Amino acid sequence: MAGLRVWSVLVTGANRGIGLGLVRQFLGTPSPPAWVFAACRDPKGQRAQELQNLASKHPNLVIIPLEVTDPASIKAAAARVEEHLVGSGLNLLINNAGITKLNSLDAETLENMTRIYTTNTVGPLLLGQAFLPLLKKAAQGSPGSALSCSKAAIINMSSYGGSITSPSGWDLMQIVSYRCSKAALNMLTKCQSLGYREHGILCAALHPGWVQTDMGALSQALGTGCLLSSAPQPAVTVDASVRGMLKVLSSLAEKDTGTFLDWQGKVVPW
Amino acid sequence: MAGLRVWSVLVTGANRGIGLGLVRQFLGTPSPPAWVFAACRDPKGQRAQELQNLASKHPNLVIIPLEVTDPASIKAAAARVEEHLVGSGLNLLINNAGITKLNSLDAETLENMTRIYTTNTVGPLLLGQAFLPLLKKAAQGSPGSALSCSKAAIINMSSYGGSITSPSGWDLMQIVSYRCSKAALNMLTKCQSLGYREHGILCAALHPGWVQTDMGALSQALGTGCLLSSAPQPAVTVDASVRGMLKVLSSLAEKDTGTFLDWQGKVVPW
Ligand SMILES: NC(=O)c1ccc[n+]([C@@H]2O[C@H](COP(=O)([O-])OP(=O)(O)OC[C@H]3O[C@@H](n4cnc5c(N)ncnc54)[C@H](OP(=O)(O)O)[C@@H]3O)[C@@H](O)[C@H]2O)c1
Ligand SMILES: NC(=O)c1ccc[n+]([C@@H]2O[C@H](COP(=O)([O-])OP(=O)(O)OC[C@H]3O[C@@H](n4cnc5c(N)ncnc54)[C@H](OP(=O)(O)O)[C@@H]3O)[C@@H](O)[C@H]2O)c1
Repeated sequence: MAGLRVWSVLVTGANRGIGLGLVRQFLGTPSPPAWVFAACRDPKGQRAQELQNLASKHPNLVIIPLEVTDPASIKAAAARVEEHLVGSGLNLLINNAGITKLNSLDAETLENMTRIYTTNTVGPLLLGQAFLPLLKKAAQGSPGSALSCSKAAIINMSSYGGSITSPSGWDLMQIVSYRCSKAALNMLTKCQSLGYREHGILCAALHPGWVQTDMGALSQALGTGCLLSSAPQPAVTVDASVRGMLKVLSSLAEKDTGTFLDWQGKVVPW
Repeated sequence: MAGLRVWSVLVTGANRGIGLGLVRQFLGTPSPPAWVFAACRDPKGQRAQELQNLASKHPNLVIIPLEVTDPASIKAAAARVEEHLVGSGLNLLINNAGITKLNSLDAETLENMTRIYTTNTVGPLLLGQAFLPLLKKAAQGSPGSALSCSKAAIINMSSYGGSITSPSGWDLMQIVSYRCSKAALNMLTKCQSLGYREHGILCAALHPGWVQTDMGALSQALGTGCLLSSAPQPAVTVDASVRGMLKVLSSLAEKDTGTFLDWQGKVVPW
């Protein structure tokens, strides 16, 4: 993460899985961010225990309540973060929170399609809107005009499952609602890159690999090692995925805004 | 439309615009389908006047009530169509109904995102599910195993605006909710092509061109002729667009299932 010098970062879905891994590694770097905002649904609850432990050791970690499907909760989260930043901007917004449901094409419902779209696609749109003033501020306060994650960026956690070109693992996992939501998230990322470029904000979509989390375990339960990745391979640890992604983030430049990359920096086809 | 010999077809959003144009041209061919099902929200209302006029002249035209965001309405429509077909299948389902809203990225809302996704993406999913038994029946009753629109097919009316690779007209029309819904519809088309291939059903997404309809007029109002198409050009008539699309449909074969083509048969990038 040599090149990634982030003064402030917010990660959604930060209480477990990849989100928690991101928070841990941001805190563990030699020169950690001044502010790591870890957003989760229930900061005081059992599911945020690990975050609470981390916060007791790291004064630069702030736990923020956030339900990504609720516009009021998103606005309140932005207001809290702004209070902490007292006049400074937010460099990096990582829209990581996401859900899936193991349904076949035949079993998808209106409710399921809408719920997953709201969490995986609409949430990142609304978060981008709510944090835009803080991201702009970070971009303005940063020297030079070239886009980078150290300056100001929105990173959307997408999935290889959202690649229309190669919808991997179809035979084992149809997850149409998830695939549609991630293809739409990729489109949102492209739109954000076009809309926010003038404000100095880089926007990209990432595929984290097939990762050993609660969500990753769903595919493990189906007895396959290739479901959410491009080729047959065992699931990677959260640590390895996050290490890879932070390296990718540190390398992102002007030319990468509006792209879709995996945790090893390879371009994923739309 | 030489090669397109469709015994039965259903078009959604058939009371105006491209849907009405499709119905007209199906009825006007030298050997028209035995059944043309024109689905619309309010068959008895003012907005279906032209369909009613057509139905008084064409006994093979049946107007079917259909609200594509309502699962119960979709099921009822499938039951009605089945009654008319008395034991035969449906060859062609054209998911044409769609909506847009001229919003900037900043002005998109949860409600708008969800409403447009429900109409443009979830509707086509649910219609595919509800009409699957009739499409399967058509495929089984058709000689040969090669996929084609004459045998059994689902055609989803997408848009160049849903191309993540080249989101045309961004500077003039951001329409993020529409773009996301059509990118997701493209993913749905790919999923349907994978899931329904074994049943002998071809699935493809079409871009109709920039067409002179109520929806097409929205871009005209913005003073541009290139918004929903790939290159600067004036809007085409409904007639020309539909003529082009029917020619494309007649040419679709095995290799085309799961693809995204424009009204002139050119591949549109995802
Ligand atoms: N794991 C993989 O192999 C894999 C592969 C491709 C892409 N991804 C993507 O990577 C991201 C993280 O996945 P993961 O594997 O870490 O998943 P995970 O272990 O299931 O964790 C999901 C996180 O999202 C949060 N979340 C879900 N809905 C939320 C909502 N409405 N509001 C706020 N937070 C919400 C969860 O909070 P609660 O604890 O409150 O539920 C949890 O913190 C997701 O976007 C996923 O699609 C994962
Ligand atoms: N025109 C273009 O330039 C263009 C370009 C690219 C793609 N397209 C796509 O082509 C398709 C047709 O577009 P168009 O230009 O013909 O649009 P249009 O003139 O606005 O007509 C839309 C049709 O969809 C119906 N509809 C909307 N919501 C519905 C719902 N919930 N349930 C049932 N029917 C519903 C409308 O019925 P009501 O009369 O009841 O509202 C109407 O029949 C759309 O999917 C559109 O996205 C159009």
